[in-house]
Amino acid sequence: MAKAPVTFESIVGTEGLPQRRAIAKAITLLESTREDHRAQADELLTALLPRTGQSFRLGISGVPGVGKSTFIETLGLFLIERGHRVAVLTIDPSSSVSGGSILGDKTRMERLSVHERAYIRPSPSSGTLGGVAEKTREAMLVCEAAGYDIVIVETVGVGQSETAVSGMTDMFVLLQLPNAGDDLQAIKKGVMELADLVVINKADLDKDAATRAQAQITSALRLFGHQGHPDHASMARDAHGQVLAQWVPQVLQISALGGVGIDAFWQAVSRFRELQTANGRLALRRQKQALAWMWERIDAGLKQAFRHHPQVRELLPQMVEQVSHGKLPASTAARSLLSAARTG
Amino acid sequence: MAKAPVTFESIVGTEGLPQRRAIAKAITLLESTREDHRAQADELLTALLPRTGQSFRLGISGVPGVGKSTFIETLGLFLIERGHRVAVLTIDPSSSVSGGSILGDKTRMERLSVHERAYIRPSPSSGTLGGVAEKTREAMLVCEAAGYDIVIVETVGVGQSETAVSGMTDMFVLLQLPNAGDDLQAIKKGVMELADLVVINKADLDKDAATRAQAQITSALRLFGHQGHPDHASMARDAHGQVLAQWVPQVLQISALGGVGIDAFWQAVSRFRELQTANGRLALRRQKQALAWMWERIDAGLKQAFRHHPQVRELLPQMVEQVSHGKLPASTAARSLLSAARTG
Ligand SMILES: Nc1nc2c(ncn2[C@@H]2O[C@H](COP(=O)(O)OP(=O)(O)O)[C@@H](O)[C@H]2O)c(=O)[nH]1
Ligand SMILES: Nc1nc2c(ncn2[C@@H]2O[C@H](COP(=O)(O)OP(=O)(O)O)[C@@H](O)[C@H]2O)c(=O)[nH]1
Ligand SMILES: [Mg+2]
Ligand SMILES: [Mg+2]
Repeated sequence: MAKAPVTFESIVGTEGLPQRRAIAKAITLLESTREDHRAQADELLTALLPRTGQSFRLGISGVPGVGKSTFIETLGLFLIERGHRVAVLTIDPSSSVSGGSILGDKTRMERLSVHERAYIRPSPSSGTLGGVAEKTREAMLVCEAAGYDIVIVETVGVGQSETAVSGMTDMFVLLQLPNAGDDLQAIKKGVMELADLVVINKADLDKDAATRAQAQITSALRLFGHQGHPDHASMARDAHGQVLAQWVPQVLQISALGGVGIDAFWQAVSRFRELQTANGRLALRRQKQALAWMWERIDAGLKQAFRHHPQVRELLPQMVEQVSHGKLPASTAARSLLSAARTG
Repeated sequence: MAKAPVTFESIVGTEGLPQRRAIAKAITLLESTREDHRAQADELLTALLPRTGQSFRLGISGVPGVGKSTFIETLGLFLIERGHRVAVLTIDPSSSVSGGSILGDKTRMERLSVHERAYIRPSPSSGTLGGVAEKTREAMLVCEAAGYDIVIVETVGVGQSETAVSGMTDMFVLLQLPNAGDDLQAIKKGVMELADLVVINKADLDKDAATRAQAQITSALRLFGHQGHPDHASMARDAHGQVLAQWVPQVLQISALGGVGIDAFWQAVSRFRELQTANGRLALRRQKQALAWMWERIDAGLKQAFRHHPQVRELLPQMVEQVSHGKLPASTAARSLLSAARTG
């Protein structure tokens, strides 16, 4: 671990290009579980914070094989050509098991990963979704402070990871295959309604199927209507009470492998960004996300302290035993455990 | 409130029929927020617990107007005719606002509500879903101890109330209208996959539409397959490793108003109950529910204690302010608040 402290200066460097080694060091510091590292990390984050928030945060999700890595490689190079700096972070709470996928991703993002204007960081390799998400949020702040103006957070849908990603990004994009079969899965899991944009990839394979899927998903999104996505739920008004224009989720076709449709994709993202900035929803979304994040960490902290409380640890096994066998009402057990946690 | 203490004996009475006045008193005691009442209530619950668990717990949900009250009236009378005793509890966290619906329900369950072998209790009229659900779970135990062998818990889908009801019952039934339009809503909200049985009501109005809806929902349930419902997810085996028969969610048509299909409905419920008893899933589901309930109450208790902690109350406003304006990392704020809660 870092001998010389990681500072804001070390991350930005002197020649105007982000220092990827220092960034990696900073993120490793954030991911450390050592108490003293955590104190250093908090200090670093607080120092970085004023330099964050200027980037656009783009969430990307989709089933394995839909083409996320291929798409991010193509999009990343497209953006770099236009003068952007691109950071790519991944959330995969199962990555300690499926370690192989990182290698796969590196090969698939071969050109992007070596580009000096790009930075790619795989998922923290351990912990719960909550923990992994926290590390990723913090890594995002480091990347922003370092000068990346586009931060992409990618996830394959493991558990609730799509919700986590849409909860830390400005725009959430769902990649779909051109067969309609998995739409129901996305609808069912409540992922579709999180999407600000749905992209049907591999349109080159079956243009007709892609067009059908596009129509189906468009009508599904319309059905969810204004009650689905929290951001599209109610009408924003300006100071004079005028209703402001609002984003309507869209469905596009692309071919990530062929580089077809990337231009149109980026136009849609740019329109979204402009609209959400003008109607104030971008700022509002970030505010809500920051507060939700704070409460989530508080909840997790309270639970952890509870479970580690000596009285609770002593009492818990018999309570669990009695409650599972119907010998003690669950609510009574909860009250006993809570009062045990208040003592000592 | 009760002068004479509410006891197990007062609830069951002497003539073998449950004493509805004493039951109502007991439930009112459970719903009270007074500290001393709560202590009495805990005592009562613990005394009742050995007499609970013998009933079948049936959850029923569906949009307003689908025919829940009509169905429960018809089903309740059908069951009473066959020698059962029926208790009906309702979960509606918005009932303090929509007070009118209780009147409507009483008129719709006119014959059931006055029957001596039935007991109908409207939703506790205040509080969060968590609080209302806790009261309803406890009321369910009182009804079971009093000798009702079928407990129906009804909810209109408000917020997460379907999840709450499926989390406290042995079987969860979803009522649907014979138009396919709202299926997507149920799928979207993740309610469909909670259903052990889907019932299309008002089949008398449009037989063709009902049949179409039945086919659509059947195939949707099949698509969710074994990964949807937690109870149908993995295969149960007996002591010799033999795979035990498992319930496959079904779709039926009925007409609650005309009393058509009630017989077939009850046959399906009975098959479900037998199967789930034989393969051990009924007991497992109740065990999981009791533990989940305990943890839910612990979480709620921890949050409440946190929010009421004097140091937290003092610090919270400025933390919220700084986090929303991006002046403090959310994770740092969470850690400060958590350590404030540990002092004093
Ligand atoms: N035909 C076609 N294949 C694609 C396209 N995008 C990705 N693929 C292929 O789909 C496979 C999976 O892609 P990958 O990017 O690894 O998907 P991921 O698992 O979502 O990251 C690879 O073999 C890609 O070459 C596309 O637009 N068209
Ligand atoms: N035609 C027809 N109408 C029904 C049926 N079941 C209920 N209704 C009517 O639908 C309306 C709403 O029923 P209600 O039981 O109050 O629905 P709830 O809001 O789900 O409790 C009432 O006018 C009922 O008479 C049925 O099977 N067929
Ligand atoms: Mg990939
Ligand atoms: Mg009703």
